[in-house]
Amino acid sequence: MLKNDLLLRAARGEAVERAPVWLMRQAGRVLTEYKATRSRAKNFVEFVKSPDLACEVTIQPVDILGVDAAIIFSDILVIPEAMGLPYEMIEAKGPWFPETVKSAGDLQKLHVADPYQLRYVTDAIRMTKKELDGRVPLIGFAGAPWTILSYMVEGSGSKTFSKAKQFLYADPATAHRLLDMITESTIAYLNAQVDAGADLVQVFDSWAGVLGEAQFRTFSLPYLTRIVDALAPRVPVTLFAKDAHYAIGALAGTGCSVIGLDWTMSPSHCREVAPNTTLQGNADPCLLYASEAAIVAGAQAMLSEFGKQRYICNLGHGLYPDLERTKVKLFVDTVKAYPW
Amino acid sequence: MLKNDLLLRAARGEAVERAPVWLMRQAGRVLTEYKATRSRAKNFVEFVKSPDLACEVTIQPVDILGVDAAIIFSDILVIPEAMGLPYEMIEAKGPWFPETVKSAGDLQKLHVADPYQLRYVTDAIRMTKKELDGRVPLIGFAGAPWTILSYMVEGSGSKTFSKAKQFLYADPATAHRLLDMITESTIAYLNAQVDAGADLVQVFDSWAGVLGEAQFRTFSLPYLTRIVDALAPRVPVTLFAKDAHYAIGALAGTGCSVIGLDWTMSPSHCREVAPNTTLQGNADPCLLYASEAAIVAGAQAMLSEFGKQRYICNLGHGLYPDLERTKVKLFVDTVKAYPW
Repeated sequence: MLKNDLLLRAARGEAVERAPVWLMRQAGRVLTEYKATRSRAKNFVEFVKSPDLACEVTIQPVDILGVDAAIIFSDILVIPEAMGLPYEMIEAKGPWFPETVKSAGDLQKLHVADPYQLRYVTDAIRMTKKELDGRVPLIGFAGAPWTILSYMVEGSGSKTFSKAKQFLYADPATAHRLLDMITESTIAYLNAQVDAGADLVQVFDSWAGVLGEAQFRTFSLPYLTRIVDALAPRVPVTLFAKDAHYAIGALAGTGCSVIGLDWTMSPSHCREVAPNTTLQGNADPCLLYASEAAIVAGAQAMLSEFGKQRYICNLGHGLYPDLERTKVKLFVDTVKAYPW
Repeated sequence: MLKNDLLLRAARGEAVERAPVWLMRQAGRVLTEYKATRSRAKNFVEFVKSPDLACEVTIQPVDILGVDAAIIFSDILVIPEAMGLPYEMIEAKGPWFPETVKSAGDLQKLHVADPYQLRYVTDAIRMTKKELDGRVPLIGFAGAPWTILSYMVEGSGSKTFSKAKQFLYADPATAHRLLDMITESTIAYLNAQVDAGADLVQVFDSWAGVLGEAQFRTFSLPYLTRIVDALAPRVPVTLFAKDAHYAIGALAGTGCSVIGLDWTMSPSHCREVAPNTTLQGNADPCLLYASEAAIVAGAQAMLSEFGKQRYICNLGHGLYPDLERTKVKLFVDTVKAYPW
């Protein structure tokens, strides 16, 4: 039994006393405790593969920041790795794949991921659930198929993701085959996370915004829909398609419980377009660089615009590593103390 | 007298027989001729400062691709340089500033740019106008104040521009002072471009999309408005605020003649929000990686959605360097041959 189930009630559209709050990348470099735990692993990939360390950093922000949910510490790129395409994390640069998908032939080397290969994540979830002891819900997550494909083709982050998009335009049939394999892998993986105890799952379409609407509807939406169809009967599903401002109505149409919004989206416009879906977001992470008075005013303005019901407070993107922890905490405290 | 004034008529909302077409970054690495000219300069910054070379690459796409406008070859970062903050262009990386603006004190070292310092651009415009001999109009351009500030603070490109945004949130008064200096510099510079013969000027707010709507209205829009107020009595002004999907109505409100759109924007939605402004754009540059049939179909679908009047055909972003020139030409030819 959960002692604090605000997140799940908000996700299901049930009445809440106040808006729950958590922060994307809340386990991370804004906390010195994270850096201490991180230093015990040889490298980032080993860190992700250590359930005890993952459990530790997952719980840190619950203790330190007082957020209303934990999100399992992991990386969306565990899926390509489990499909046969390993990655490295280069300090201050981001992910890097020694091998990438260049053509249809490269799909021969890949397979649908077996969740057993990802048991370091499900083990971490089991440990974390036990440690949390019902204090707050635990969120599981995965990358959206298009975003995962974009890394598998591009091999790293990119300003334009033009190689990944070239793949869609130049060889749509192969792109769909790969998206299908990623989707099957992701559904099995998220189901395993729910089996292990995840109370809600979030799907991150981090690079949705480089697609236009037609490409999104062709190469992303159908696969997100399959994931929602598979998971929504079990737990609430959150879809976060960053920068895909044109997609809010389409995302609501999948039947997901929650839509994540970045800070360029207008709360009132999204309420109009998705009136029966819970909204999550959407403060600019850079607001937390402002003065304390400006942070409080910004958070309060956002809460007032979203309203108390069907709302989960968050940022519109992950925390940046150089933010001050006291200001992050001030944001959380402001949300929790808001006089609804 | 211009032999082909389609661009200017479309910009002014006058009747045209067909939509004019040009392409952002049409002078560039998709043309081997560009690479040949480029190799005659010691480095990129020297290339930009050589009026004869700039003139040559400005005219190449008119000859080779048959576009309906030339755009003077230059770089938006000539303004920071003329204000006292020089830049370098690092191959395959992008611009880099050895010194950046970190605090109010750093503004002491800067000054409003004198257009005389930028006479290599106005000389290039004069040479190009002469060489073009009225075949097509010549577009001048500058970066938007927010985008220029973001480079001056960040020192290079960035995924999040969080340092530049931190500057806005943490020290808004200094940010406004710097934006004011950039705006004064830009107005003088664009006026000098018009004096030299530019027939239309475009202002590129390349990083508008990292701002939320409130920040855009505070730190970008007022300065764009000042530029439009100063230039619009002389020539049509195009505003291109990339990824600022929330800003179309506000941009129309400045009284600019043309709004540039990226490929995430819906033509019909933008027509509704800005019914009396010419729209420019907005094909995904990656469409040009597709098969010839898909390129033709994509271009035709776009033309049909925008309609013939108050429309300037373009991409939603610059050409990518690895696009095939035959496919770029096919796109231009498709637009020019469209049976309106």
